[in-house]
Amino acid sequence: MRNLTMMTDLYELTMMYGYYKHGMSQNKAVFDLFYRKQGDITANATAAGLEQVIEYIENLHFSKEDLAYLRSLNLFDEEFLSMLSSFKFTGDIYAVKEGTMVFPMEPIIRVYAPIMEAQLLETTLLNLINHQTLIATKASRIVQAADGDKVLEFGLRRAQGPDAGIYGARAAIIAGCTGTSNVLTAKLYGVPASGTHAHSWVMSFPSELEAFRAYADIYPDSCMLLVDTYNTLKSGVPNAIKVFKELRAKGHKPIGIRLDSGDLAYLSIEARKMLDDAGFNDAKIFASNDLDEETIWDLKAQGAKIDSWGVGTRMITSHDNPALGGVYKMSVEEVCGVMHPRIKLSENPIKVTNPGYKTLYRIYDKNTNYAIADLIALVDEVYDESKPLTIFDPVDTWKQMTLTNYTMRELLVPIYKDGKLVYKTPSLMEIQAYAKEERNTFWDEYKRIHKPHRYKVDLSKPLYDLKQKLLKEASFKVII
Amino acid sequence: MRNLTMMTDLYELTMMYGYYKHGMSQNKAVFDLFYRKQGDITANATAAGLEQVIEYIENLHFSKEDLAYLRSLNLFDEEFLSMLSSFKFTGDIYAVKEGTMVFPMEPIIRVYAPIMEAQLLETTLLNLINHQTLIATKASRIVQAADGDKVLEFGLRRAQGPDAGIYGARAAIIAGCTGTSNVLTAKLYGVPASGTHAHSWVMSFPSELEAFRAYADIYPDSCMLLVDTYNTLKSGVPNAIKVFKELRAKGHKPIGIRLDSGDLAYLSIEARKMLDDAGFNDAKIFASNDLDEETIWDLKAQGAKIDSWGVGTRMITSHDNPALGGVYKMSVEEVCGVMHPRIKLSENPIKVTNPGYKTLYRIYDKNTNYAIADLIALVDEVYDESKPLTIFDPVDTWKQMTLTNYTMRELLVPIYKDGKLVYKTPSLMEIQAYAKEERNTFWDEYKRIHKPHRYKVDLSKPLYDLKQKLLKEASFKVII
Repeated sequence: MRNLTMMTDLYELTMMYGYYKHGMSQNKAVFDLFYRKQGDITANATAAGLEQVIEYIENLHFSKEDLAYLRSLNLFDEEFLSMLSSFKFTGDIYAVKEGTMVFPMEPIIRVYAPIMEAQLLETTLLNLINHQTLIATKASRIVQAADGDKVLEFGLRRAQGPDAGIYGARAAIIAGCTGTSNVLTAKLYGVPASGTHAHSWVMSFPSELEAFRAYADIYPDSCMLLVDTYNTLKSGVPNAIKVFKELRAKGHKPIGIRLDSGDLAYLSIEARKMLDDAGFNDAKIFASNDLDEETIWDLKAQGAKIDSWGVGTRMITSHDNPALGGVYKMSVEEVCGVMHPRIKLSENPIKVTNPGYKTLYRIYDKNTNYAIADLIALVDEVYDESKPLTIFDPVDTWKQMTLTNYTMRELLVPIYKDGKLVYKTPSLMEIQAYAKEERNTFWDEYKRIHKPHRYKVDLSKPLYDLKQKLLKEASFKVII
Repeated sequence: MRNLTMMTDLYELTMMYGYYKHGMSQNKAVFDLFYRKQGDITANATAAGLEQVIEYIENLHFSKEDLAYLRSLNLFDEEFLSMLSSFKFTGDIYAVKEGTMVFPMEPIIRVYAPIMEAQLLETTLLNLINHQTLIATKASRIVQAADGDKVLEFGLRRAQGPDAGIYGARAAIIAGCTGTSNVLTAKLYGVPASGTHAHSWVMSFPSELEAFRAYADIYPDSCMLLVDTYNTLKSGVPNAIKVFKELRAKGHKPIGIRLDSGDLAYLSIEARKMLDDAGFNDAKIFASNDLDEETIWDLKAQGAKIDSWGVGTRMITSHDNPALGGVYKMSVEEVCGVMHPRIKLSENPIKVTNPGYKTLYRIYDKNTNYAIADLIALVDEVYDESKPLTIFDPVDTWKQMTLTNYTMRELLVPIYKDGKLVYKTPSLMEIQAYAKEERNTFWDEYKRIHKPHRYKVDLSKPLYDLKQKLLKEASFKVII
């Protein structure tokens, strides 16, 4: 397994050195990883990447070669480098399970550890969680637009490097894609691999018909033919039907055809008629070509006869929003055993962080089992579901709501305790099932692709009060 | 080193199996890797990723575990799997050197190999070249907008996974970034690592002033302070100046300050005045915060006093164009030693491929040494620089130009011959120097960030004629 210890921003190391040299090594800190809203596309997100975070932490160590390199930078002393040589993670990590639907400002991961350790984790945790959460979120939208049709992940060749292909496919499966073209991802995670042939297959035979026959010959029971190399309706589909008839005569049942260019609505409707007229009502029409949730939505609205969708570039890169705005912010500093909540100010109110040692609850309506609101609260608050609960909007505080018939579920679960892994990652297909279940507890209005209704993410009263207090105190720190 | 053999689309393997079962294993093929135009942003591109292609091919092999997995798919027979167990690349690869400026439709890589081998390479070559070329291209634009100022790569936390961070930083360095925050990339490629401290450093001290002092204390000769944690002009800059004065009194010279939020034009101008008034005319102002070529350009136009730029998210993801449209198309099939040029048709003329066994020349004006045009030609054409050369536009063929005082340079160089690596990858800093030299041979009009003038990429007469002939023949293949 790869050691990503050195895949970090240099400033994590210079800050670690600073904490070390200033006798702050024993201080502890709490950091929250969360994302900020970027528009409709991440109004909600599907958390992903935790398994890779665990792999990273399990492998966290500086090799001799790493230390030699760091020594060569002339930024660190020998004592510090020697400390690094036995460095490991000794803290606590809580996280939402992969596949959980999360919202802006909610802690997805919470790290409580000696400040040097918590600091080092920043860059890599952000890299891993930002990436997979981004792709799972985009893929959720695409799967939703496909409205029950199969969606296959096809993006490897346009992904931003090998990991983006491998783990992007993993994230797409979490979000409900039924398979991937990526053989390595399929092998690593035990998910269906998918694919048939390309234009080059057709081009390497003297004619399209010969190419189709040759393909049907080796895969008579899983024959899916790409019909747009020369001319979809005048050559591709008729040749495919000819070969399908030959297969039928030999007792085989063809799978269908793939369209990869042209107007997919028109071509699929015409191809459907031709297949039906030839008695291949069961043959599927599979479509690909720069698809995303918008195009799938429009094609379906225009009556396209497409049964399943191969989605590449625009899903694997989250093309219209290729970065999640995930950040990792200190919310508590513990000095000599005393916890001091911390806040980061900003002229931009959305960039002001939530201070304190916090957790995250999801509140469900007991009658419907649908989610009503999320509540960010301090860890030491006690809730009693048998008593009414009043929640309020953290900006327009007069907007209140009192719940009587509800259940609460803590979304952050323990992953590491005192440096020990205490969590068993489910299989990828289990995560996929959980993610689907999770999404089913939300009303459609929150999952709408365009202009979703804002889901309530409230602060508990004690957290709200703490934040106001720190904001007031902080305003005095600024010399005016 | 990682083995990426299985990181491929399943259809590469099913097609290989098809070629194998149909006795076509001995057929050879030529494939070209090139990209298609997507607008101004890739009107020209900076080729990158070849070193990783070489690493991939050097490691190309199916492990026992891989074969066991493939067997479990029930798609391949034992004979084929046994052939895969000793599979290696035996063909030729030519490529443009990393850092070369390339244009749409130009072959960046050309593979000539037994068809099964050439086919297998498709997905991984596209993944590696698409990614790094994309980021090098974006970074070139950003470096150009910075107009001689230093640009540092800071994007790891928002990159699409570890490789996107590691190799994206590599590509950014090729394009002229002077350093990266990514310690692993810096270590792997011997390039400068860069970084100081984050907001969390400031927040972990009782006051900003104490945090700055603590930082200056450990790095007195490389002190760069982040001044926007509380209030840039009222707290951050005054505190930084206080600490800089203390450093000066002890004989040290501070590096400068970093701005990471707010209006960078206004703040930098005001901060510059404050620094100058305190006698720190040499202190640099470093800026970051969602920068790209557009924002840098605008900030400079508005008189921002920024000396160097830290660019993250928008460079490492090529935010406004997060995928390069690179494709890998068969252009020749060799059967029993006879080469048959192949063409891929499409209703969309831009998607029609250039057939034949081709190479790529760059033509320079002998007086100025500036590039005049590129010429895609068949490999067996002979050119004599002492004779006039007439080139013409491949669409508007009446647009002609006759050159008399020119030199020609073949851009594709041998990388593999008969499966043997014959190329030595230069160091990353050598590639950076070459890329800069390369860009300097192009007139500004072709490198303009907005609406660049179209650089001529012509087809040789023999290639043009071959293409027309195949287009005519192909049109007969379509049953009407």
